[in-house]
Amino acid sequence: MTQSNEVWKMILEKTDHTVLTPTAVFEGVGGVKDALRMAIEYGAASMCLAPSFVEEGVEYANGRIPICTVVGFPNGYSVTSAKVAETIIAVEKGAREIDMVINLGHVKARRFDKVQEEISEIRGICGKAVLKVIIETCLLSDEEKVKLCRVVWSAGADFIKTSTGFSTGGATTADVALMKKTIDEMGGCRLQIKASGGINSLDDAKALIGAGAMRLGSSKIISLVRGGGDAGSY
Amino acid sequence: MTQSNEVWKMILEKTDHTVLTPTAVFEGVGGVKDALRMAIEYGAASMCLAPSFVEEGVEYANGRIPICTVVGFPNGYSVTSAKVAETIIAVEKGAREIDMVINLGHVKARRFDKVQEEISEIRGICGKAVLKVIIETCLLSDEEKVKLCRVVWSAGADFIKTSTGFSTGGATTADVALMKKTIDEMGGCRLQIKASGGINSLDDAKALIGAGAMRLGSSKIISLVRGGGDAGSY
Repeated sequence: MTQSNEVWKMILEKTDHTVLTPTAVFEGVGGVKDALRMAIEYGAASMCLAPSFVEEGVEYANGRIPICTVVGFPNGYSVTSAKVAETIIAVEKGAREIDMVINLGHVKARRFDKVQEEISEIRGICGKAVLKVIIETCLLSDEEKVKLCRVVWSAGADFIKTSTGFSTGGATTADVALMKKTIDEMGGCRLQIKASGGINSLDDAKALIGAGAMRLGSSKIISLVRGGGDAGSY
Repeated sequence: MTQSNEVWKMILEKTDHTVLTPTAVFEGVGGVKDALRMAIEYGAASMCLAPSFVEEGVEYANGRIPICTVVGFPNGYSVTSAKVAETIIAVEKGAREIDMVINLGHVKARRFDKVQEEISEIRGICGKAVLKVIIETCLLSDEEKVKLCRVVWSAGADFIKTSTGFSTGGATTADVALMKKTIDEMGGCRLQIKASGGINSLDDAKALIGAGAMRLGSSKIISLVRGGGDAGSY
């Protein structure tokens, strides 16, 4: 295996292969099932798909890859009880990873207590499922990002995640580095970082991992590997 | 009252004044409460706000204007049981209008039966609440738009609505005219049209109403009225 292949493998193992297009279908060329087959084949960390595909995804994956889905996505302003209902349904259908969006209105109103309570409630429902909490960094100040690292960790989540991919921006190495620094300064904190949104090249992926991301969310990384991507330069 | 004022009044009476920004707060300058106060003052048809603001909105409005909220918004791919839970919660909290997004994956998979079943189920929960069904016209073919007029009407909804405002495009007069023609050709069909997304001027509003829209969704119309808008030319 070449160095390039080793690099790809390391990136793929950290990638939640993601299809969250509103018009996506499960069957057929370019459908979610195709994406799921590739996520399995290329050794992705999980396959992230829409709630309405969890059932079919779990059945097709048949234990070969964890199925990840989203809650309160992408705007985050559904009520907690609705997010709870979504999470219960997703976990019952077999989702093993839940990517929830926080209520950004609560952040802007400085009601971090409400943000934390909501995450804690979802955490309780997730059970053994991995919980990732999307804070939508492009809409936040640095102070809010730092504060949210503490809130998300205190609420018991596994990951803090940068972006939905449906707002004004995606993951940046600066944001990931800021979050990593904040987490490192919190003694004994095992909160991990998922970088997502706008990852368009191997360089992007490497930079985000270098800055501290343990997981990437991307719809493109597998295509880059298949097409040779920009890996030629490594 | 000048002709211009008459025109504004006619438009305002058909407008769901809308604030669905993920970072919106309720209190404070530029917050949802301010928008709600203006919606009441200017005689809008309803105030459309995020699910997490329904409770405060209903309390503040105190019957002076119907509160509208969204379900399965904006991507439409939450499962039916989650949309049902969201609707139950919204109606219990006092929302009198529900704007739900259809599952576009079902449309693209030609499962119009599933689209109709889902709308019917939500219709049953809405009771006396007005149900508007968002089809996201910018992602559909004309054939799909025509087909969905029949599906939405058969499912018992009150309105078919063009757009979420969070996708690649908003309402067009061509789409509204196509939907109006389709509805007119369905004998005895009382389905109404709500045009939303990208309404930036009095000209836009008048053109959409002229094409057949009975309701507009807009965050800007009241600001245009307050600022004098482009009404000077009328």
